[in-house]
Amino acid sequence: MPVIKATIEYDGTDFCGFQKQPSVRTVQNELEWGLGRVFRNPTKIIGAGRTDAGVHATGQVVNFFAPEWFPLGNLRVALNSSLPIDIRIKGVEEVDDRFHARYSAKSRKYVYVVLNREVPSALLARYTWHLTGRLDIPGMRAAAEMLVGTHDFCTFGMPDKPGQSTLRDVMDIRIGRRSDLVILTIKANAFLRGMARAIVGSLVDVGRCRLAPEAILEILGARDRQAVRVIAPPRGLYLTRVEY
Amino acid sequence: MPVIKATIEYDGTDFCGFQKQPSVRTVQNELEWGLGRVFRNPTKIIGAGRTDAGVHATGQVVNFFAPEWFPLGNLRVALNSSLPIDIRIKGVEEVDDRFHARYSAKSRKYVYVVLNREVPSALLARYTWHLTGRLDIPGMRAAAEMLVGTHDFCTFGMPDKPGQSTLRDVMDIRIGRRSDLVILTIKANAFLRGMARAIVGSLVDVGRCRLAPEAILEILGARDRQAVRVIAPPRGLYLTRVEY
Repeated sequence: MPVIKATIEYDGTDFCGFQKQPSVRTVQNELEWGLGRVFRNPTKIIGAGRTDAGVHATGQVVNFFAPEWFPLGNLRVALNSSLPIDIRIKGVEEVDDRFHARYSAKSRKYVYVVLNREVPSALLARYTWHLTGRLDIPGMRAAAEMLVGTHDFCTFGMPDKPGQSTLRDVMDIRIGRRSDLVILTIKANAFLRGMARAIVGSLVDVGRCRLAPEAILEILGARDRQAVRVIAPPRGLYLTRVEY
Repeated sequence: MPVIKATIEYDGTDFCGFQKQPSVRTVQNELEWGLGRVFRNPTKIIGAGRTDAGVHATGQVVNFFAPEWFPLGNLRVALNSSLPIDIRIKGVEEVDDRFHARYSAKSRKYVYVVLNREVPSALLARYTWHLTGRLDIPGMRAAAEMLVGTHDFCTFGMPDKPGQSTLRDVMDIRIGRRSDLVILTIKANAFLRGMARAIVGSLVDVGRCRLAPEAILEILGARDRQAVRVIAPPRGLYLTRVEY
């Protein structure tokens, strides 16, 4: 059976995260239900990143088997017709049968969006973290630089199973302002659970001048999740790209 | 009692429109409930534009009386604490007691956002009209020009009460593309009910080459609502500015 790689966008607001769970609404549940309907056969998927409840994605990647008889040219449109409007398939392609959305991934990129101005926004409430008081971008950048590289990130997140490695390679962190938005981009080989939001929370603490940029090294070295004082809320976080 | 002018943003998705109605969720209901709580007294508001169900606003204007004892410097924050997150007060100011949000308004500006690309978006589903097939912007502009000026717009919308004038002055229509978004901006002294969406629907019909630009004049002259073949859905429409 052909192996399909699909790129997915979702609005995480009304999902209890990506991963399949009984009796709550998750992205994986909805995708498998939609695929089952289109293929008239139960279908399991593998996702590149297990985003938390409320976290969005513009570039989540999943893989699954398609039946031989299904015309692939129709798959994107057929699937979108079977999915709720807060999940959309952006593209599908047939891939080598050794492709694994999770284990074949070389890097993931997350974007975090802060609305940084005095006045709140109703239209951006589900999609940004609203912070009044102008953030100190150079300070945040100085702190971010200290996180880049291969480190033990156990302060910032948990592995899927206790005892697994908590070493991760953070390849790049960029922070910039576009008008009222402060946008943080973090690229790593892989992320621990909660890692992106704990990093953003700590960098924002630096941006609010509640933490010196150098203190980020102490937090990283603490190897204790209690050392992270601020966890950024999920609504500002987007999984934007997975590279293979 | 001081008269307050407030500028409001809302996500129209979960509202049955702006105007007060019994037993459904409207923007005016929520605002009056929030004001009543903050002022500990029932408070009525007057709004500049009665947006339909699902239509958003970034610059709706309302006015109301505030009690003498209330410190105006605290009003924006106090009100936002009493309102649901899909309505935010962007600013408040004391105005002349002859100010009337509706009758004093000299113009209203609406913006309509079309997502014009093959692939749909989950994150923009509540906020745009998704149309595949590249729209013909020069054709739309040519048609739009014919609508500018003072005309009887009874083809495109209804007055609040039967028998009222349907003459309106459309001051400006601008249409532009920014990457995958086609953005239409319509400024008029005032809008009939449904007028913005009927104009956008007709211009989009031109953009899809289903209607010649010149045919817009026949529609305008038909003075018959049946002449409008396409009404744009509310989710792409935003009341962005009211001028006094």
